[in-house]
Formats: sequence, structure tokens, C-alpha cells
Amino acid sequence: MTKVFDQPDQFAASALAGFCAAYADRVVAVPHGAVRAAPGSEGKVALLVGGGSGHYPAFLGYVGAGLADAAVAGDVFASPSTAWVYGVAKAANRGGGMILGFGNYAGDVLNFGAAAERLRSEGIDARILAVTDDVASASREEQAKRRGVAGDLPVFKIAGAAAEAGLELDAVMEVAEQANRATVSFGVAFDGCTLPGQEAPLFTVEAGKIGMGLGIHGEPGIRDEKMVPAAELARMLLDPLLAERPEGHDGRVAVVLNGLGRTKYEELFVLWHHLTGLLDAAGLTPVQPEIGEFVTSLDMAGCSLSITWLDDRLQEYWCAPADTPAFRRGHVAPAAPGRQVAAMVEAAPEIPPASPESQKTGACIARLMARLAEALTEAEEELGRIDAQAGDGDHGQGMARGSAAAADAAAKAADAGAGAATVLSLAGDAWADRAGGTSGALWGVSLRAWGQALSDQAAPDAATVAQGAQDAFDAVIRLGRAQRGDKTLVDAFAPFVETLRDATDEGRPLAEAWVLAAQAGTKAAEATADLVPKLGRARPLAERSVGHPDAGAVSLALCARVIAEELTKGLSWLTNFKRA
Amino acid sequence: MTKVFDQPDQFAASALAGFCAAYADRVVAVPHGAVRAAPGSEGKVALLVGGGSGHYPAFLGYVGAGLADAAVAGDVFASPSTAWVYGVAKAANRGGGMILGFGNYAGDVLNFGAAAERLRSEGIDARILAVTDDVASASREEQAKRRGVAGDLPVFKIAGAAAEAGLELDAVMEVAEQANRATVSFGVAFDGCTLPGQEAPLFTVEAGKIGMGLGIHGEPGIRDEKMVPAAELARMLLDPLLAERPEGHDGRVAVVLNGLGRTKYEELFVLWHHLTGLLDAAGLTPVQPEIGEFVTSLDMAGCSLSITWLDDRLQEYWCAPADTPAFRRGHVAPAAPGRQVAAMVEAAPEIPPASPESQKTGACIARLMARLAEALTEAEEELGRIDAQAGDGDHGQGMARGSAAAADAAAKAADAGAGAATVLSLAGDAWADRAGGTSGALWGVSLRAWGQALSDQAAPDAATVAQGAQDAFDAVIRLGRAQRGDKTLVDAFAPFVETLRDATDEGRPLAEAWVLAAQAGTKAAEATADLVPKLGRARPLAERSVGHPDAGAVSLALCARVIAEELTKGLSWLTNFKRA
Repeated sequence: MTKVFDQPDQFAASALAGFCAAYADRVVAVPHGAVRAAPGSEGKVALLVGGGSGHYPAFLGYVGAGLADAAVAGDVFASPSTAWVYGVAKAANRGGGMILGFGNYAGDVLNFGAAAERLRSEGIDARILAVTDDVASASREEQAKRRGVAGDLPVFKIAGAAAEAGLELDAVMEVAEQANRATVSFGVAFDGCTLPGQEAPLFTVEAGKIGMGLGIHGEPGIRDEKMVPAAELARMLLDPLLAERPEGHDGRVAVVLNGLGRTKYEELFVLWHHLTGLLDAAGLTPVQPEIGEFVTSLDMAGCSLSITWLDDRLQEYWCAPADTPAFRRGHVAPAAPGRQVAAMVEAAPEIPPASPESQKTGACIARLMARLAEALTEAEEELGRIDAQAGDGDHGQGMARGSAAAADAAAKAADAGAGAATVLSLAGDAWADRAGGTSGALWGVSLRAWGQALSDQAAPDAATVAQGAQDAFDAVIRLGRAQRGDKTLVDAFAPFVETLRDATDEGRPLAEAWVLAAQAGTKAAEATADLVPKLGRARPLAERSVGHPDAGAVSLALCARVIAEELTKGLSWLTNFKRA
Repeated sequence: MTKVFDQPDQFAASALAGFCAAYADRVVAVPHGAVRAAPGSEGKVALLVGGGSGHYPAFLGYVGAGLADAAVAGDVFASPSTAWVYGVAKAANRGGGMILGFGNYAGDVLNFGAAAERLRSEGIDARILAVTDDVASASREEQAKRRGVAGDLPVFKIAGAAAEAGLELDAVMEVAEQANRATVSFGVAFDGCTLPGQEAPLFTVEAGKIGMGLGIHGEPGIRDEKMVPAAELARMLLDPLLAERPEGHDGRVAVVLNGLGRTKYEELFVLWHHLTGLLDAAGLTPVQPEIGEFVTSLDMAGCSLSITWLDDRLQEYWCAPADTPAFRRGHVAPAAPGRQVAAMVEAAPEIPPASPESQKTGACIARLMARLAEALTEAEEELGRIDAQAGDGDHGQGMARGSAAAADAAAKAADAGAGAATVLSLAGDAWADRAGGTSGALWGVSLRAWGQALSDQAAPDAATVAQGAQDAFDAVIRLGRAQRGDKTLVDAFAPFVETLRDATDEGRPLAEAWVLAAQAGTKAAEATADLVPKLGRARPLAERSVGHPDAGAVSLALCARVIAEELTKGLSWLTNFKRA
């Protein structure tokens, strides 16, 4: 298990700081990421890569000549927020357009996508590159739904080399997408990893078994099989990839044999000893194979095999020189580190003027956010366990972190005299910024939308609060692309919002309406246990998830109940919520 | 735990084969090791490094320009045999003399020392360099008794750079010894590693505790302390090293922060984040620090910090370019791989002519060796557990492997018509060759000495067998340098030999004398539980070992009893042992 940390929620930030200190001659630290100390030539296409922490050398270790221009690091197994991706991208921009590369997970798709939109709105041509190499996560026909695992390395390596060679944005994207289509991976798990500060691993594999088709976020395998000797294991890794050999391909392949963390080099060499024979028998010629740790999953035991079907162009870029903290190939002429990155101090948000009445409501909202943060911290481990049934187990951590940041931002804003709209909007921004991940981003846009429905002048009535809930729900649907029945937080959010609207429309007081809504949400959250997930990383583990509720729905219902409890206490400070 | 292997006793050999296949453009495989594919210049001092497997990138990953010329790989956590070291050294010789570098462990001292003697006897000036960096293993006054841990990297790096720079042998040795004196390490363990094929880890650290002063062979720490946050852990690692700062030193230090296997990069970066501040506060300037995995211990959880107190010369060699599979620094001009290593087929041993009577005795010996191998295979896990109390837990594996090889060699020799002396001598050679480690080497020289006391003509009488035992014992004392009372196999061997001699001197038949001797040896082996170890890697764990017998004494007594059982069965083939 992960043993070395201070506060668990500071793990990723401290690791980033230590990484930047260790490679101070090669990288420059920027908030939530790192950029090359010796930047690529002006006008060059910049490749930014990233995702959650816990995967080193992915993604920070890839920053350097011939590979990535920058990397953004989310919290452990959690997508960096939109603001983080955007901030690092701005620092990495060389004027030739940008590619934002990441593994295909819902949270990353959401945040890197939103950051790319924001960059484009400022005139920076930014494209997204979602790596989809994991053959275990979706069928060949649905390649776009496959998640990204250790194929990140060859895809980013090839894209980075094409950018370094001076190709223009469209051309680099074409090479990168070709590399992604040509890359397939299959992995196995022997045992789960443990998040910093957690007591139990995210999952375990029964003694004597192998989890086939692992993910890199502690997702369990898609099925368990009997542990086999190395010779047989080599075949189990290779066979699913051979099945995807393109017709008529001449057999030149980039190969990455990747250890997940606890499966060590000598074990990988034992596997490679067998793989060389199997590759040869299959008529494949490994070109500059890589055996080691490239995309890890904390201390997870397991390994994966990736193959990129090369042609002349892909081979040229795969073999091109590169020099990064974690990956070197050939010789890159040293460039003088010359980068001056302007200190990117995150400025305090502006607080618009507010009426005394709205300031009081703002203070109420801040106290409600504090109560939410308390409740979510208490529920952190439990939510993590629920999420680990079919997800990556980071949900409890994300919710605790997001709500704590939201409570902090709300308190600061209220202290600075903000009104209701500003307090709730800033709470949302802070939540998204600190929680990372899909749910963090969705909670962020949701609270912001809810806040925008309020104002900094009038104290809100029950109908306004209910309209805010509807706006928040709409934002979640728009950005999260989930439908009811997909086994997400939408399944709890929808009945909550409907009940709240109906009850306030009937003229019930807010507290009473909210209690009914929270009950509806709770019942619906429990009922998600019967559903089969249709979206995101839980999808390939669909069957395993049946019988367990969706963690996002459960946490949304929990929040609804906590607020209901506060509202029904009828504390004096709540009277600011005017009755309709 | 270690999960990927075929037959556990083939793990190291398969890993070596896989390593050589993975880096076929950089290294050339030789029996039991690897040499550079592009050899250093003719007349260059050659640096051979090595030790047991299970520590990758130590030692194979260090082979390349600017670092080692070759590496020899023993079995997991077991010294390579003398013959293996000698064989790889011969392949690496460039005519300028050789340095054989290894961590300071009894088995390695024995085998690399014996190999150096053999090389010198052939006119190759070979020196030994035993790295002694682990401050937890002996006091500063007894630096020569300290074991070698991750200080291997800076010491070998500096020695390799001096050799690459063209210094002559004496000068390289002087630099290397200076680097060794200037290098100190301290490590901690969070959890033990598991040998391939074993069910249980070699040791465990209680939840919430840290084992202070770990070794790299699964030795437990010298004491347990409470688990602390990373900031405090950084201080715990650094303080014991600061205590050894040379007077008046200007503060330039090479630093290696090393992960043991399961403690991952991001955890090391969190530590480094804190260490940078602590080093600065102590007035130390890290020069090209290295954070990563350099000397591992299979999947052990833990880490170590190493410091080399630099001067201008050490700094120059520490910073010099190097290019190996696991370590790159600066730029080394690529050299064309041009090495032609003659196929080093291990030739079948010559079988001297023997009398029919001695051939029959040879066949008896072969059957006794087969019985020993059976018994030691059965006892493998139990012996491993006893050894793990205060050692590295490899004893059971070594004995099983050595005896199996000895039985095989003896059977082959007997089938080829060898007499008693040849069968037993070749069994000894095979035992040493396959078992590795101290006990393997000692069993090898011991059986060979015993065999030399017999002949290939006359069938031995009881007195001759007893004389052989005495000769075997004397060889163990001469090469192993242990005394009675040091808590080694000598404590069981001595009373065995004395009793056997006394009983045969009294005219008792061999079987009867042997039974008495086996009883004496068994009693003495049990009594080693009361002793405090005085030699080898068990020494720093002296107190912990009290109450547990010495594994080497226990296994020797077991062998004595197994032979006693066979002799008292009075099987017809035993009548070849003539009564005195």
C-alpha cells in the first residue's frame, strides 16, 4: 500500500513539487503541472499530456524533448480540473496550436474537452487526443469507447516526435490519431493498489488467480482466471492483441511491456523471455521494445502488453530521439534551459457588491457548504468502497476534497461580503478545481449554474431555489451526457429536482419541499443497485456492478439529506430563505 | 509478492535471458551474466559488478558505457558461484586488469574473492571492491563490516567513470575505495518481499510501523518505530547520514533516493520534496541527485537514502556521462556494437578412470546425494523460514537447488563410470555452482575436499570417510573464516566430525559411528538457538536471532541424519563402504 505521504489529499501536490525539484534542470513547475525547461521551438505544435496522479512516469515523466511539452497532474486517479488543464496549457503554448492528450476516461474527456474549448475561445487552436488502447474495455467495433492504459506511451511518443519534427497541427493530429488507432493493449492484475491514507486496497484478486483485463485505476479485471506460469501468461497477454492484427500488416510493431507498480523488472524480463519467442512465432518484429514501468497504478500488482502496428511513418516517430526524466531514446542535442514562466499566482476572485439581505443568504449557503464538507469527510471511506465495486474507488476522496474546498471558498466569499449567487458559484468553481474527476467537474458546473439562478441582491424564495436546482441538473445533463437509467448521479438528481419543483409549485415551504425531494433522491439512489452502468469506466464491469448502487447517486442523495436536516432544524439563519 | 515465474529456481536465469533479449542492441549474453555489446577500449580497466538477482536494476542494468563492463547474476538473493563470477570476468577482460565490485555480504566476499584469486593465478590482475555503505549494519568504526545497499550505484558509477577515463588499475581502485568510504546509506522497510514460489513474505512489518535500517535481502529492520508522515520520514532517513559528515566537508553530495520495489516514484517524490529543504538546512548541495529504483529487493516496500560526500574528483566521475539500460547521464557517443563473445559452452567434466569397486562406491554416493536432494526439497520452506529470522531467507532455496544439482552431477558422473572421489568432487562443484550464496560455496568446497580424501581406485573404509569429513570441515574453516560459537554451520559440523572420528577410531562400523555423529550434530544445531551471530548479514540482527537456531547448522544436521538413516538401512549397495 501507499505509505509515504503527509495529508493524503496533499499527496499529488507534494509529489509534483518533489518531481519538479528532482528535475529542476529539465522542467519548470507551473501550478498543477510542469513544462519543459528548454521549450521547443517557437511556432511548434505543443503536446500537453495528463490525467490523474498515481501513474508515474505517466504523465510528468514524459515532459521533455521529443515527447510532451507539458503535463498536468490531477489528484490521485482523478482528472485534473478544467482550470488546471487550461492553466498548464497556457504555459506550454508555443504558438503552433496544441494537442491535449489523455487516456479516455469520462472525467478527463470532460475537463480536457472543456479546457480545449476555452483555449479555442481565446484563439489557441487546441485539439483533444483521447487514447483508447485497452482492448478489454470495449469491443473493436466500439474502439472510441475503449479506455487508455499503457498505450499512452507509444501514442504520445509518436505524437510528440511528429510535433518535434515540425509538422503542423493538422498533420500532427493525423499521425497521433493513426498511432492511437494502431495501438492495442491488454493487461492483467494480480492484486489491487491502496490509495494514500486508505486502509484497504481498492480491490483484491483471490490468491492463485489473475484478474484479466485490468484497468489502471484499481478497476478489477473483467474476469478472474487461474494463475499460470510465466510462459502461459505471456500467451494470455499477447493473444488478445494478435486478434486485432490489421489485415496484411507486415509485422513491425512497437511493443511496451509495462509493470503496474508491484510487478518488478525481473518478472517483466521473465515474461519478455517468453514473449520474444511468441512474437517471432506470430511473425512480428519488435522495434525498439520497451520493458519497464511506464503507466503505473500506485503499487498495484500486474502488467500489460501494448502493441502499435507500425508503418514507415509511425516507426520513424516511434524511434525518433527523446529525452525526458523517464524516457530516453537516442541522442537529443542539449538545449539551454531558457524558460521564464511568469509566476502564475492564482488571483483571488472578484466579489461583486451584494445587498445585506443577499449577504445573509450567502452566509447561510457558506454554513450549509461547511456542513456538507463535514458529512462527506465522514462518508469518504464508505463512498470509496461503493465506488470500488465497479469504478476506481476515488469517489469518496473526490467528494471530500471538493466539498472541503467549496466550503472554504464559500466561507471566504461570505466573509468578503459576497451575495448568494457569488458564494454558491465560487463554491462550485472551488469544488471542481480541487475534486477533479468527472463528479468534481459536474458538481462544479452544477453549483455554478445553481448559483447563477440566484442573485446577489434579492434573497431567494423557494421557487428560485427550485429553479436553481433545475438549472444545475440541466448543466449536468449538458456536460455529462448521461441519461436517466445510465447508473450515474443523474438517476438520483432527476427525481430530487422534479420533487422539489412539484412541491414548491404546490406552495410548500422550502424545508418541507426539500425533505420530500431528498427522500425521492435517496430512494432513487438505492434503486441504482438494480441498474447496469452504461457510461464511463464502470461500463466494462457492468455485470459486477449490479447489486451495488452508483456511488455518485448515493453521495448526491447524502448531500440532499444533510441539507434537508439543516433546513428542518429551522435555525434562525435559515429564515433568510423566504417562504414562497 | 512475486507472481511471474515458471519454475521458481529458474526465475533468475529466465530474467537474465529476458534482459539480454530486451537490450540485445546494448549487451551480449554470456553464461550467468552480460557484457557490453560495444566493449570499452582495449587495455581499459574492466569493472564487473554483481551479486544475487532480485535487485534490478542492480546489477545487470548497470552494464554500459561509463559504468560497468559486465554483470554477473546469482540466483535470487544468492551470490553467484565462484565459477560464474570467474566466467563472466573472463569474458569482460580488456587487458587492463579488473575490478570485481559487489555488496559486502559473506557469500559474495567468498565467491568474488575466490574468482579474483583464480583470475590472478592466470595473470589477470583482479581486485575486489566490497561496497559497505549501510550505516545501520555496523558502526562507523567497523565500516568494513557494513553491508552494501543502494550505495552500490554511486560507488560503481564513480569507479566505472574512472575506468572509462582511462585511469590505470591502481588509480581506479583508489578512486573506487575513496567513493566507498565517502558513501553512506540508511533505509527503512514498510513490508517484506516474497521470493518466487513462496507463499509467505520473508518478514512483515506490523501495521502502522516502520522497520528502521532495512537490508536489501528481506532482512527485517534493526528496530520498529511508529509510522510517521513523509516530512518526518525524510528526517529519519537523513539524520543518521548527517551524523557521518566528514569534518570540514564543503557540502557537495551525490544523493540517491532509492525505492525498494513497492514504494513508488510519487512516494519518493513526496519524500524528495521534504528532503530538498532538509538538505538545504544542513548546508548540503545535492549534485545530480537520483530519485528512483536503483537497488531493489523484489517487491519489498521501503526506501533508502544514500549520500556520497564529494570532492572535485568524485564529483567529476559522479557527473561523467553514462549510458546503460537503467542509467543514463549526459551524452555518450554511440559505439558500434562489435563484440564477438566466443560461445562459452560449459564443457562436460572429464571422468578419470576408476576401479569397478570405486565405481560401485561412486554409485552409492550418487544415490545418497539423490536422497539428500529429496530431503532438502521437502525442507526448503522450513529452512527458509528459519533463515528469515535473522537472515535473508534464501537458505532453503539454496540448499534445495544445490543438492539437486549435486545429485544430478553425481548421477551423471556415476553413469559415466566415475569412482568415489570423482563423483563426490563433481557433486560439490555442481552444488556450489547452482546454490550460490555462502552456504552453497562452503558446501561445494566441503564436498570437493571430502571427495579428494577418497580415491577412484580403492573402496573407502570408515576411517577414510572420517578423514574426508575432517578435510571437508577444514576447508569450511579455511574459506568461511567462521569459528565455533559464531552461530554458523560450523557449530554443528565440528561435533559431527569429532564424533565421527572418535567413533571410527574406536573401531565402530561406519553406520553406527555416523548415527552418533548425526546425533551430536543435531544437538549442537539445536543449541545454536542460544548463540548470538558474529558473522555475515545476521550480525546486525544479533539480538533478534537469539532463540532461533542457525539455518546452516540445522540443514547440516538434517543432511547428517538423512545419510545416517540410509546407512542404517544396511541396503546392499552400502556394503561397499567397507567396515574398518
